[in-house]
Amino acid sequence: MKKGQATRQRIVAAAAPLFNQHGFEGCSMQDVMQATGLEKGGLYRHFANKEELAAEAFRYSLAQSVKLRTDDLDEIEGAVAKLRHLVDRFVAAPSAIPGGCPLLNTAIDADDGNKKLRRLVRGGIRSWKNRLALLVEEGRQSGEIRADVDAKRVANTLVAMLEGSLMISRIEASRDALEDAGVTLQVLIDGLRSG
Amino acid sequence: MKKGQATRQRIVAAAAPLFNQHGFEGCSMQDVMQATGLEKGGLYRHFANKEELAAEAFRYSLAQSVKLRTDDLDEIEGAVAKLRHLVDRFVAAPSAIPGGCPLLNTAIDADDGNKKLRRLVRGGIRSWKNRLALLVEEGRQSGEIRADVDAKRVANTLVAMLEGSLMISRIEASRDALEDAGVTLQVLIDGLRSG
Repeated sequence: MKKGQATRQRIVAAAAPLFNQHGFEGCSMQDVMQATGLEKGGLYRHFANKEELAAEAFRYSLAQSVKLRTDDLDEIEGAVAKLRHLVDRFVAAPSAIPGGCPLLNTAIDADDGNKKLRRLVRGGIRSWKNRLALLVEEGRQSGEIRADVDAKRVANTLVAMLEGSLMISRIEASRDALEDAGVTLQVLIDGLRSG
Repeated sequence: MKKGQATRQRIVAAAAPLFNQHGFEGCSMQDVMQATGLEKGGLYRHFANKEELAAEAFRYSLAQSVKLRTDDLDEIEGAVAKLRHLVDRFVAAPSAIPGGCPLLNTAIDADDGNKKLRRLVRGGIRSWKNRLALLVEEGRQSGEIRADVDAKRVANTLVAMLEGSLMISRIEASRDALEDAGVTLQVLIDGLRSG
């Protein structure tokens, strides 16, 4: 890796938890300078503006979180067991980056304003749902999951419930809502089995 | 009603959709003056500051939304039918006030900052869950709902799923996630029946 690229990646890795914890408005280029020890010129050599850096930071945070939840998924046999594993992982650790789930944080943050971030969040949710729907579909094809199961609806349910319960857990400052969602979803996933 | 009280209520009713749509930071006392036609002095005679007005506006928005969803609940027979009705109502109209569910909006808005609003949101979610858990409990007592159903978990599930799917619907600018959540929850609620 070239030195420029390495510096760029170091900036993104340092900025990711800052944006994830404090939001787009709550994190300044000054904060990123402090976290990286770089001067203003050093930062702007790599990123045209804060929006570009925030977008990269979001992509990085999301990729790390997806990796944390999915990196040993291939070792698990069967669609139902894989879905259960994904729910367990989310409940145990919604994020690989300090500050919680980057999708939820950025969704909240970009809700009214930042269009680029909003688009990235929408893409992140879409890929997550697609991955889940594909797993359900594979289970249907193999006969493990009932033929009458609507893969898209299951995917929507999992994502809505995990993100919704995470939001409530955060407001309540308690893991209760998230853990209850985990239990409910495991029952729901078990109910997908055929026979 | 005294004239002062009527004016106060008129201010709250005018401010509620503004705060619900634009958030605490995004709505100024100037905006409320414009919406009510009152002068600054007239506004501050009724409210010490913007925080006090925003809190009243949130209470008003939430009360209106709860009323919209629950005002004919007593006419419905049975806990399961009541739960179904509440889910239907939420999916059809998450809010009585322009801007969407006041709980979700204010939760998002108050997430990092405003402690008073955050406390009100927490209280709103708690009452909502308590009302739902009470309905489930009544169904268990009457034998309509299975004895092994965990009322608190059902309540957590309904709230997390409705709010989570509403959030995703908003990001996606589509009612899909909300409507899928409605279908999933109706199946889940039907599954609570004993026998």
